[in-house]
Amino acid sequence: MAAHEEFFAGIPKIQYVPDAGPGDVMCFKHYNPTEVLMGRTMEDWLRFSVCYWHSFCGTGADPFGFPTLLQRVWNEGTPMEAAKKRLRAAFEFFTKLGVKFYTFHDRDMSPEGATLEESNKNLDEITDLALQLQTQTGVKVLWVTCNLFAHPRYMNGAATNPDCHVLAYAGAQVKKGLDVAKKLGAENFVFWGGREGFHSILNTDVAAELKHMAGFFKMAARYKEKIGLKCQFLIEPKPKEPCRHQYDYDAMSVIGFLKHHGLERDFKLNIEPNHTTLAGHSYEHDIVVASAFGMLGSVDSNTGSPDLGWDTDQFPMDIRNTTLVMKTIVEQGGLQPGGLNFDAKVRRESTDLEDLFIAHIGAMDAFARGLRNAVHIIEDGLITGMVKERYSSFSHGLGQKVEDGSATLEEMEAFIKENGEPKVTSGKQEKYESIFNHYI
Amino acid sequence: MAAHEEFFAGIPKIQYVPDAGPGDVMCFKHYNPTEVLMGRTMEDWLRFSVCYWHSFCGTGADPFGFPTLLQRVWNEGTPMEAAKKRLRAAFEFFTKLGVKFYTFHDRDMSPEGATLEESNKNLDEITDLALQLQTQTGVKVLWVTCNLFAHPRYMNGAATNPDCHVLAYAGAQVKKGLDVAKKLGAENFVFWGGREGFHSILNTDVAAELKHMAGFFKMAARYKEKIGLKCQFLIEPKPKEPCRHQYDYDAMSVIGFLKHHGLERDFKLNIEPNHTTLAGHSYEHDIVVASAFGMLGSVDSNTGSPDLGWDTDQFPMDIRNTTLVMKTIVEQGGLQPGGLNFDAKVRRESTDLEDLFIAHIGAMDAFARGLRNAVHIIEDGLITGMVKERYSSFSHGLGQKVEDGSATLEEMEAFIKENGEPKVTSGKQEKYESIFNHYI
Amino acid sequence: MAAHEEFFAGIPKIQYVPDAGPGDVMCFKHYNPTEVLMGRTMEDWLRFSVCYWHSFCGTGADPFGFPTLLQRVWNEGTPMEAAKKRLRAAFEFFTKLGVKFYTFHDRDMSPEGATLEESNKNLDEITDLALQLQTQTGVKVLWVTCNLFAHPRYMNGAATNPDCHVLAYAGAQVKKGLDVAKKLGAENFVFWGGREGFHSILNTDVAAELKHMAGFFKMAARYKEKIGLKCQFLIEPKPKEPCRHQYDYDAMSVIGFLKHHGLERDFKLNIEPNHTTLAGHSYEHDIVVASAFGMLGSVDSNTGSPDLGWDTDQFPMDIRNTTLVMKTIVEQGGLQPGGLNFDAKVRRESTDLEDLFIAHIGAMDAFARGLRNAVHIIEDGLITGMVKERYSSFSHGLGQKVEDGSATLEEMEAFIKENGEPKVTSGKQEKYESIFNHYI
Amino acid sequence: MAAHEEFFAGIPKIQYVPDAGPGDVMCFKHYNPTEVLMGRTMEDWLRFSVCYWHSFCGTGADPFGFPTLLQRVWNEGTPMEAAKKRLRAAFEFFTKLGVKFYTFHDRDMSPEGATLEESNKNLDEITDLALQLQTQTGVKVLWVTCNLFAHPRYMNGAATNPDCHVLAYAGAQVKKGLDVAKKLGAENFVFWGGREGFHSILNTDVAAELKHMAGFFKMAARYKEKIGLKCQFLIEPKPKEPCRHQYDYDAMSVIGFLKHHGLERDFKLNIEPNHTTLAGHSYEHDIVVASAFGMLGSVDSNTGSPDLGWDTDQFPMDIRNTTLVMKTIVEQGGLQPGGLNFDAKVRRESTDLEDLFIAHIGAMDAFARGLRNAVHIIEDGLITGMVKERYSSFSHGLGQKVEDGSATLEEMEAFIKENGEPKVTSGKQEKYESIFNHYI
Repeated sequence: MAAHEEFFAGIPKIQYVPDAGPGDVMCFKHYNPTEVLMGRTMEDWLRFSVCYWHSFCGTGADPFGFPTLLQRVWNEGTPMEAAKKRLRAAFEFFTKLGVKFYTFHDRDMSPEGATLEESNKNLDEITDLALQLQTQTGVKVLWVTCNLFAHPRYMNGAATNPDCHVLAYAGAQVKKGLDVAKKLGAENFVFWGGREGFHSILNTDVAAELKHMAGFFKMAARYKEKIGLKCQFLIEPKPKEPCRHQYDYDAMSVIGFLKHHGLERDFKLNIEPNHTTLAGHSYEHDIVVASAFGMLGSVDSNTGSPDLGWDTDQFPMDIRNTTLVMKTIVEQGGLQPGGLNFDAKVRRESTDLEDLFIAHIGAMDAFARGLRNAVHIIEDGLITGMVKERYSSFSHGLGQKVEDGSATLEEMEAFIKENGEPKVTSGKQEKYESIFNHYI
Repeated sequence: MAAHEEFFAGIPKIQYVPDAGPGDVMCFKHYNPTEVLMGRTMEDWLRFSVCYWHSFCGTGADPFGFPTLLQRVWNEGTPMEAAKKRLRAAFEFFTKLGVKFYTFHDRDMSPEGATLEESNKNLDEITDLALQLQTQTGVKVLWVTCNLFAHPRYMNGAATNPDCHVLAYAGAQVKKGLDVAKKLGAENFVFWGGREGFHSILNTDVAAELKHMAGFFKMAARYKEKIGLKCQFLIEPKPKEPCRHQYDYDAMSVIGFLKHHGLERDFKLNIEPNHTTLAGHSYEHDIVVASAFGMLGSVDSNTGSPDLGWDTDQFPMDIRNTTLVMKTIVEQGGLQPGGLNFDAKVRRESTDLEDLFIAHIGAMDAFARGLRNAVHIIEDGLITGMVKERYSSFSHGLGQKVEDGSATLEEMEAFIKENGEPKVTSGKQEKYESIFNHYI
Repeated sequence: MAAHEEFFAGIPKIQYVPDAGPGDVMCFKHYNPTEVLMGRTMEDWLRFSVCYWHSFCGTGADPFGFPTLLQRVWNEGTPMEAAKKRLRAAFEFFTKLGVKFYTFHDRDMSPEGATLEESNKNLDEITDLALQLQTQTGVKVLWVTCNLFAHPRYMNGAATNPDCHVLAYAGAQVKKGLDVAKKLGAENFVFWGGREGFHSILNTDVAAELKHMAGFFKMAARYKEKIGLKCQFLIEPKPKEPCRHQYDYDAMSVIGFLKHHGLERDFKLNIEPNHTTLAGHSYEHDIVVASAFGMLGSVDSNTGSPDLGWDTDQFPMDIRNTTLVMKTIVEQGGLQPGGLNFDAKVRRESTDLEDLFIAHIGAMDAFARGLRNAVHIIEDGLITGMVKERYSSFSHGLGQKVEDGSATLEEMEAFIKENGEPKVTSGKQEKYESIFNHYI
Repeated sequence: MAAHEEFFAGIPKIQYVPDAGPGDVMCFKHYNPTEVLMGRTMEDWLRFSVCYWHSFCGTGADPFGFPTLLQRVWNEGTPMEAAKKRLRAAFEFFTKLGVKFYTFHDRDMSPEGATLEESNKNLDEITDLALQLQTQTGVKVLWVTCNLFAHPRYMNGAATNPDCHVLAYAGAQVKKGLDVAKKLGAENFVFWGGREGFHSILNTDVAAELKHMAGFFKMAARYKEKIGLKCQFLIEPKPKEPCRHQYDYDAMSVIGFLKHHGLERDFKLNIEPNHTTLAGHSYEHDIVVASAFGMLGSVDSNTGSPDLGWDTDQFPMDIRNTTLVMKTIVEQGGLQPGGLNFDAKVRRESTDLEDLFIAHIGAMDAFARGLRNAVHIIEDGLITGMVKERYSSFSHGLGQKVEDGSATLEEMEAFIKENGEPKVTSGKQEKYESIFNHYI
């Protein structure tokens, strides 16, 4: 890339400097990519990914304010010129940051044209460059997704639009998106249904819309099969915003939907904790639940503020949260082919170019600390052992029969008539919390 | 019942007085049980039920206050004497109010004994009286449920308790509950998992607990089959409280759980709107969704305050809400064998005996108005017609292929290449809202 | 206006047609402006106002979607040409709708220039036209406000910006805004502090910022005095969004702030119920509280959805809510010089031009119904009488001494030693609710 | 206390063991009471206090469950015998834990009698013992409060009850409470208005109730003066629960109320973060705001779960939160005469006696870590310096005039005409967060 403009001049490749001081925010103090923990490198456990839309297309606009970030150099020129500059800037960023994956929407990467054909042509041209930059740098696509929510045509839904013409447009767009995924060797493909839901129950036929959405997913699965695309399909739940209600409310809603329509072998979940908290759960909840159902595919590692009712897509900085997330991920043996994608944006007030680095570095260090803590917890085995002991009654006798499904209510009654009242057993929550704090 | 004490002396059978004044709160102004709407009596559409626990066992205690309602006459005497008085009072109330159904937990109806055997004996004795009063009055059991949450033994869960001994106790209790359901001819049997969830993820094995819960439900289904009990099984979702997180979070969570475990033909849902709003949905949401999945079995017709984060179990008084609920119920052809159960309690400050009548009458009138509005909306057909027209593109051409599942992404793309951009279609939300207001 | 383009061709002046059918959404069924209730016309009680920004400048963009409403004819031409077209369209709309007030921000009405001088010049030119149209139509300004939040310069605050240069800009802008208010005869001037707050406590000096904000308000009050501007100053509380925390959180926060800084005689409150519910209160709460403190100046009559955590600025359609609001307003003798400003926007999916009329008409009818209900309640006197009776113990004896501030704890103790335990008095909430429903 | 029963047999005085392992939960790893930080001992900075009600009177009952903690030995005997046992147990606990303060309600400490006189007599008898135990152990009263919410007489409010007879009862009770505060040398006296608010606006006269509440506080202030009681009066805000709305909603609401009634010199605030989060703020918000107004008197150091809408009163274990709280406290020079009172309860499932120790130790260590982090941050001066620099424009020129209140809008305008657009300045939120994480 020597012949090209440098976008982050003066910023060298970010190094691991474990003894850096409090004000040293342009180095890793915890993330040491090649260090091996529990038989795997940190890089391999964490599989960090930078998202293209927030970090390279984000304008800083909010519902009450105009853009603050348009001065980025890569926004100059015609739309197609800017798209290419932006891509080069992004790969410079990935490389300097030392992240091996990125994610994008079709319409972030290249501008929408006047027709589908023109949009597709734009996408072909820009993804040619992307492929070249991927090869040069070794950076790969964690996942691609189609933007089926920003264009006005999708205002009433894409796969759930009352007008089949719009659904067809979405289908055509996804077809191209899958072709692009194949071309770029994407490891996953994400569906986020930001407009699949409703604002008013009065004008909505919920049963029809859900049926159409299932049909849409089935078409996508068939086309993926047809073109020999090997990537994992992922659905990303979100309860609301932009819609008042979105069908993919949370992990369990999506699991229920998939199972109802026989789609559970074709999809896993991409969990974003900021969406989880908007659904009224704790930060780590949907990661734990998706994992318990064998459906955790990838994580959009960001955070919101628990006192806010909308998606702020902040960089995750809370070590307690990252520890809980990494504990689940390590316990399930990693996220491959998924990863930790920073679906996070610098605040619109963070207008310095270096803020983009500082934010990612801070979040990567937060996850690196979370990983170290989780490994420490798991290797020590203290908490795991306490939990195992807590459920030990299911390993023998009546408990064993419950486990294997052969117990009956009659046996339960007989057991109680013989054994009477169970003994009182403390849940020891504060003890668990105190021990957990030891590792934080 | 002539020989027995009168508990609500001076209160006659509640009458329908359509032209009563604003201060006349001891008569129905809208609920006219025998009036026929769309081919069915109001009584039959509404299937009102009084809940036993709040209205006859409620103490008025709250987390910050001592009981305020203990002065009820029916609380006098030994526990078994009080249980009988209470039951007689309740049947006097049902009869005077003109409600044909009631619901109860095993432990509301009769006191827990020192052993399971003693508890069962108490329950036998009191349900003998219940059966006699049912026969005398024609009042029936809408549903029975087992209280698997109040006793300290269930503090860490019933079907999901880490100690199998507790699970066994719950199983024994459910066995007896099912026997009682058969004895009393209950039309439904409800499971509410108030302790099936967790306070801390640190001490919890989610996958194990969910498996145990599924196994528990399967045992119940087998025993029901064995004793020839014909009633409908219902699960009542609630997102949280008393647990920090409950597995039966909302309608979709339960549907997902049931489908994952192959239990969807054995259970329907009992939706309580106050629980729905605690899960972050709109009042009517889970009723609409459960109905869309063919899983709406019954409704716990109460309300909360949208500004509060806990279950207040207030009497439903908002006509907009009752209209939306009744519209869904009428559209699905009624709730049989379910009904509208007032899982609602008078405020702890509403200490007059007449408040119990005023509250039920007000709520019954609110639902009667909702029913009248819904019937008016459906019979007019204006809103229904607008919705049908909105989705009309799915009745032919490509839309038809989407409906029957034969469409492909390639056809979608071809369609767009031929037809280009879809036309812009207003969602007309405000028009729907204005028309809806016409009926309120 | 005959010589000018008609923007809402085919839409005549909206009429009062009390017996219109359910599908007739382009007439008033309840709002009869000249009808007299309690000695005042409906028009005078309600003082409806259309907001300029949502209805004429709104684009339909949301955080996840591009504009949907740009096809409005009045957006054509250069920024200044469009500004004039837009103003003519607005006055046609006000006139056809029959609303006598409008509200605007300086930067909605005319485009921001490259310098303050240019912005001011633009504003002068457009407000000349506004004044002319006001004179022609009799439509007046309910309030003006300065947009101190959208421009990137205000991203870190206006009056609370850490950089005094930005505060100075805001001051210069408010100076011009006050001049414009005088020029156009505005009856009120609003301050909404969308950027007066913080995203992170770590980089914020709360005490300094609050002091600067108070100083800013004092400067505005002095300048108002100096130029002889007679309008009422209003602060509009909002708890959050766009900031994570805004200092004007709710009515009581603003009252506390004003009293702390000795500003309570210079300001009243402009209450927006959608902001009130975001602060965790019930819809009517801040209206009731502001009125109780004699601080209710005006109302931004919109609504949100209680299940959402952000500002949706929907048209208010819930009769229960409008009744509660109008009851408070009538009880305090009206809102003059304030009014009911529709700070509401058609949904971004409501793309038809007629939707703008339908939405306003529906909301005006909702408030007209609320007014009729409130007048009915107040004239009947039943509820008022019950409340008066409830507090009657304060009209004599010890209660009288509490009222006049002369009672002592010693007297209290003596009273209890003499009179013992108070009697139990039911709060009768359900009775109040049932009676209230009679009027809805 | 040698002659008395030992309640926590086998548990020695808790020691500071900084190198203890993860499973060692019965020692302090961070709290070293005599260690000096910034010129003061940890004990003196933290002023830990145990609350009597949760830890010694708590039953483990919740709205859906019966008591789980009644087996505590100190609950045996007649109410007065139990009251004395409980007090001895508590002082054993304080001593073994090494905490120098406790807090209590009048009715926790001694049972309510049939009359006020009997209640007072009980209180005299038990506080005689309390005084003796205080002298023996050196443990002091951080604050006393009167329970004006649990008894049914207060169901409709205490100071805001519509019946003056109830207000009188509350007054009589507070008179005695103040006498007790004097007798025991309490350093503060708290008012928590759990019933001062409303469930329904329909039956409530807000203005009258607020006036009565102010009058009530004035009587208390006069009586305090009269008896020469030197302690600090504190109001504890809470937004809701048990009431739907409580007047003391949050810090700013109380500050507004106090200033409106001229009470701001008589009261400071006792902030409970679990109440703060229920009001929609971040954990530390009300502590920061109260401190900014010079009104932070004391802290009820507990936590809730941000995904729950009710008060869970958990032990605070989050180091990020404790760091933010301690940073504010250290910056204002400490809390004296207030302290950190653990208004927290062990979970109802934490039934082991040792859980009471584990929970307090864990929370004390969490605050000790917070203190160490805060001191580190403040002593380093990095964050403080960055904030100071951020506001540096107010130290000279126009900024200086804003600070001293002499600036005018005209000067603002002139400044902008001369200096034009302000420069863009990044808020650097992520940098602050990264640096903050360095200290955690």
